[in-house]
Amino acid sequence: VTFLEKLKQAARQNHSYLCVGLDPDPERLPENVSILEFNRAIIDATHDLVCAYKPNFAFYEALGNEGLEALRKTVAHVPENIPVIGDAKRADIGNTSSAYARAVFDYFGCGAITVNPYLGFDGLEPFIEYHDRGIYVLCRTSNAGAADFQSLGCAFDGETLPLYEVVARRVQSWNAHGNLGLVVGATYPEELRRLRHDHPDLPLLIPGIGAQGGDLALTVRDGVAPAGQPAIINASRQIIYASKGPDFAGAARRAALDLRDRINEHLSPGTE
Amino acid sequence: VTFLEKLKQAARQNHSYLCVGLDPDPERLPENVSILEFNRAIIDATHDLVCAYKPNFAFYEALGNEGLEALRKTVAHVPENIPVIGDAKRADIGNTSSAYARAVFDYFGCGAITVNPYLGFDGLEPFIEYHDRGIYVLCRTSNAGAADFQSLGCAFDGETLPLYEVVARRVQSWNAHGNLGLVVGATYPEELRRLRHDHPDLPLLIPGIGAQGGDLALTVRDGVAPAGQPAIINASRQIIYASKGPDFAGAARRAALDLRDRINEHLSPGTE
Repeated sequence: VTFLEKLKQAARQNHSYLCVGLDPDPERLPENVSILEFNRAIIDATHDLVCAYKPNFAFYEALGNEGLEALRKTVAHVPENIPVIGDAKRADIGNTSSAYARAVFDYFGCGAITVNPYLGFDGLEPFIEYHDRGIYVLCRTSNAGAADFQSLGCAFDGETLPLYEVVARRVQSWNAHGNLGLVVGATYPEELRRLRHDHPDLPLLIPGIGAQGGDLALTVRDGVAPAGQPAIINASRQIIYASKGPDFAGAARRAALDLRDRINEHLSPGTE
Repeated sequence: VTFLEKLKQAARQNHSYLCVGLDPDPERLPENVSILEFNRAIIDATHDLVCAYKPNFAFYEALGNEGLEALRKTVAHVPENIPVIGDAKRADIGNTSSAYARAVFDYFGCGAITVNPYLGFDGLEPFIEYHDRGIYVLCRTSNAGAADFQSLGCAFDGETLPLYEVVARRVQSWNAHGNLGLVVGATYPEELRRLRHDHPDLPLLIPGIGAQGGDLALTVRDGVAPAGQPAIINASRQIIYASKGPDFAGAARRAALDLRDRINEHLSPGTE
């Protein structure tokens, strides 16, 4: 079963377009709870409410080998029916990207990865060659600085297009194995709407609601709702840090349930 | 002492613009030699011939925690007077890039890092805030696929410029702390020549000679030679895999000596 099939099954089974980001910050963890204990408790409390989990590698790397061991064990703890997206934003020249693919897919066991398009096709090819995995390519990122390069008007195919749209078109043309998708921030609703409309056959990973300020109703209506491959919404801090007390897992469950249901409500107003 | 000062001192002391890439591949190591033993032997045999070392994180991550522990100990083994560039090609949104900076600079102990510009300034700012470290931004990478996005003609400041040149100009404008540089592949000599000419105050890191086919004479003449901040040439496979036999360290030393001297010969023909 491929990543994308598993994602669709989990979304159907849990009635959920919610992906929970597992981004541990030692300063925000409850007292006397290790990262691995924290993640396991969050997963145990939310796995029937999500379509995927997304650990961001940076937060584990910052803690050195102990953090990376917690990452490996966290991925292993996720139930078999829920896919895991390794948010690593990798890319290098070909033989080096092969090594990154082995790390994220084989060693850490992730079903999907986020990658950076700047190096071009041959930097992504070693990831794409894992046909059963998912590869989400950064397109329009959720941060303010995204505009520095992603908004530049580029000459492409006789048109002038913003760079992120060129990325989307190239990703579409590279999608022979059906395992590519795009990362598009909820903080740019107009771009999200256009990308979702123009590329309905590319799965989307949408960060940027919650702490980053993206509007949920707009994101769901224009990003998730239209037919096509799944578009999933990631939330990290607003779920996993819902409480710093001993009830953190229960609070995370309530926050995940609330957000999942609000997404569904925006999808089908009045029917939930 | 900052990364850049240390780099200049090492280049002067060792009469060298050669950076050796420490990219361990288990299939190419001599028999019964661990990665850490291999790296230590290479470092011991070459540290008076180089201006820097550059471990690429991918090759260590592919080996899991054992590999990453070897990376940490490898960096620690490099003599104090030789700077280490962590070739990690990282970037994410701000709070996440902060975590990557802690990983590469604080945990692994690297003096510099390679980063990807696609996310824009705020994705690089947490690295730049380490004023004593070096930050090499991917500009024109050495691979064939570099052209997919980096060559796109972009509207910028009333001109049409290739994306990589926009990256170079923005990096220059972001260099308030003097700790930024560019990665420019030797496989694109014309682009290298122009970038070196237009941005003499940005240090360059030049991969792509050797296994990747870049021409050494051109690289030195047009990339390294003109006055300005140091431009350094990286070589990995042609040095560290010079022999697979028990004499691998001696062979690496001879390969490093030969390449260092050929670089110097191209810099000052007839005087070496």
